Amino acid sequence: MSEAPAPVPVDFSQLTVGWIGTGVMGISMAGHLLDAGCRLVVFNRSSEKSRPLIRRGAEEADSPAEVAGRSDIIFTMVGYPRDVRQVVLGEEADSGVLSGLRPGGILVDMTTSEPALAEEIAERALLVGGRALDAPVSGGDIGARNATLSIMVGGDSETFARVLPLFQRLGKTVVLQGGPGAGQHTKMVNQILVAASMIGVCEALLYAEKAGLDVTTVLQSVSSGAAGSWSLANLGPRIVQGDFAPGFYVEHFIKDMRIALSEAERMRVALPGLALVSQLYNAVAAQGHARSGTQALMIALKTLNGC
Amino acid sequence: MSEAPAPVPVDFSQLTVGWIGTGVMGISMAGHLLDAGCRLVVFNRSSEKSRPLIRRGAEEADSPAEVAGRSDIIFTMVGYPRDVRQVVLGEEADSGVLSGLRPGGILVDMTTSEPALAEEIAERALLVGGRALDAPVSGGDIGARNATLSIMVGGDSETFARVLPLFQRLGKTVVLQGGPGAGQHTKMVNQILVAASMIGVCEALLYAEKAGLDVTTVLQSVSSGAAGSWSLANLGPRIVQGDFAPGFYVEHFIKDMRIALSEAERMRVALPGLALVSQLYNAVAAQGHARSGTQALMIALKTLNGC
Repeated sequence: MSEAPAPVPVDFSQLTVGWIGTGVMGISMAGHLLDAGCRLVVFNRSSEKSRPLIRRGAEEADSPAEVAGRSDIIFTMVGYPRDVRQVVLGEEADSGVLSGLRPGGILVDMTTSEPALAEEIAERALLVGGRALDAPVSGGDIGARNATLSIMVGGDSETFARVLPLFQRLGKTVVLQGGPGAGQHTKMVNQILVAASMIGVCEALLYAEKAGLDVTTVLQSVSSGAAGSWSLANLGPRIVQGDFAPGFYVEHFIKDMRIALSEAERMRVALPGLALVSQLYNAVAAQGHARSGTQALMIALKTLNGC
Repeated sequence: MSEAPAPVPVDFSQLTVGWIGTGVMGISMAGHLLDAGCRLVVFNRSSEKSRPLIRRGAEEADSPAEVAGRSDIIFTMVGYPRDVRQVVLGEEADSGVLSGLRPGGILVDMTTSEPALAEEIAERALLVGGRALDAPVSGGDIGARNATLSIMVGGDSETFARVLPLFQRLGKTVVLQGGPGAGQHTKMVNQILVAASMIGVCEALLYAEKAGLDVTTVLQSVSSGAAGSWSLANLGPRIVQGDFAPGFYVEHFIKDMRIALSEAERMRVALPGLALVSQLYNAVAAQGHARSGTQALMIALKTLNGC
């Protein structure tokens, strides 16, 4: 698994790529593949979100199945596991990607979703003569825009090698983590780390405030040593400024933690830290901040503390 | 507070520095001041630990009070708040630093200790015509050896400016955080962050293992993005290798978290994440790992999970 298969050279101009899900992240990512010279066929539930891509030469399809029928490799980047089920497996017969997949077609689901669903999709893709990878990402909207995402892939190494040149247009760190579902599991590892970082940053900053410290001066002392983290460096200053604008939505993070806790329960492993943080994020959503950024955890912690 | 006072130029060869507490960190730090050209007077409960410094020209005193009587600036670097009380305030009359402090003498306590004790010491130093700073550090034994510590200082800015040239021999990041106790409070902020990072790293690696992932490969995907932290980069690989040798002792970390939780209670602020992690560290100690490194949290988490 740790040996990176060599990418299979590809002529982007000979490749038709399907893209389903042109939200904040998807639209940047699909744009990079247009830039690379691919022919692009797109589908989004709300068609107007795809317009910037259409204006740049992408073609629009009427269903996920149609995208699949016209593409060599189809990417999906939607919101929730239920959306993945809908666009890949089809709510009604013949509407999902798998029902339109060409022989040899490759489906790449980049949504953060359930490992078991990734396994099911990989099996069903094989049954129709195709292949599937799960390839969730971290790095957020900025990483999508700058093509600096970390892409965590599950699937077979031959399919991975074929998609690798495209992944390299989307991200900086692209690693095959194992068979189907391994990409999703790796993303869960990522989110367990993020969850703990967030509670640490919020509790630390609240303590600093209560102790009467100058929080910005405190960050000078604690940011570069053993207490340092991406969250502290990037979200700490936003929290200090009271900026809760979303880099990553609370409601999506809650979904990710729910998947991780559900998988943990299935594997019979207790993760008390993650369980605590996920409960606090339920409180964040309860207070009306589902569409704020994850740093809004500070709001719930302050409410809890009567401030 | 955020304006750094300019250091007061100092001729190290004209300065006598006292050093109390020549444990793993203290001995490296005192050595840097010898290297700078200071005259050094040392005291340690177990005298043999000071020998490497004596061989290099340091003089030995028979009590903390004697160190103070012979020095311009006295540093203390001991284990627990009770040790600070003993060497600074004196168990019996006339044995502690304050009873020997010269008029104008400066006491700098670098132990991670209680903010309220730091305030008490600063007041009592003033009463005997001296000054005191609290100046705990982060960076561990390696930071002490390489003089790359982060030094978090509480006290008055004039005294800070006088000690700053010496701090700069000991650390890379030296910040005056506020009045007496502010250094200790800042260190608590640091430890709250570290506590959260540690539970995150351990739960994430345990999840990865249970999910059947190759943990080293997982670290490639998650280390450089939003999940990244000092703990993950530095302690993650040690945990994977089963290396629980101490960089920082579990028993000292438990002490730090106890101080932070006690201060939080006094300030009436709930820190549920810190409370959870401190309980798990009690379990680490209960399992016989008080003198292991903080990454031994993984051992307690695995025991909890029957593995």
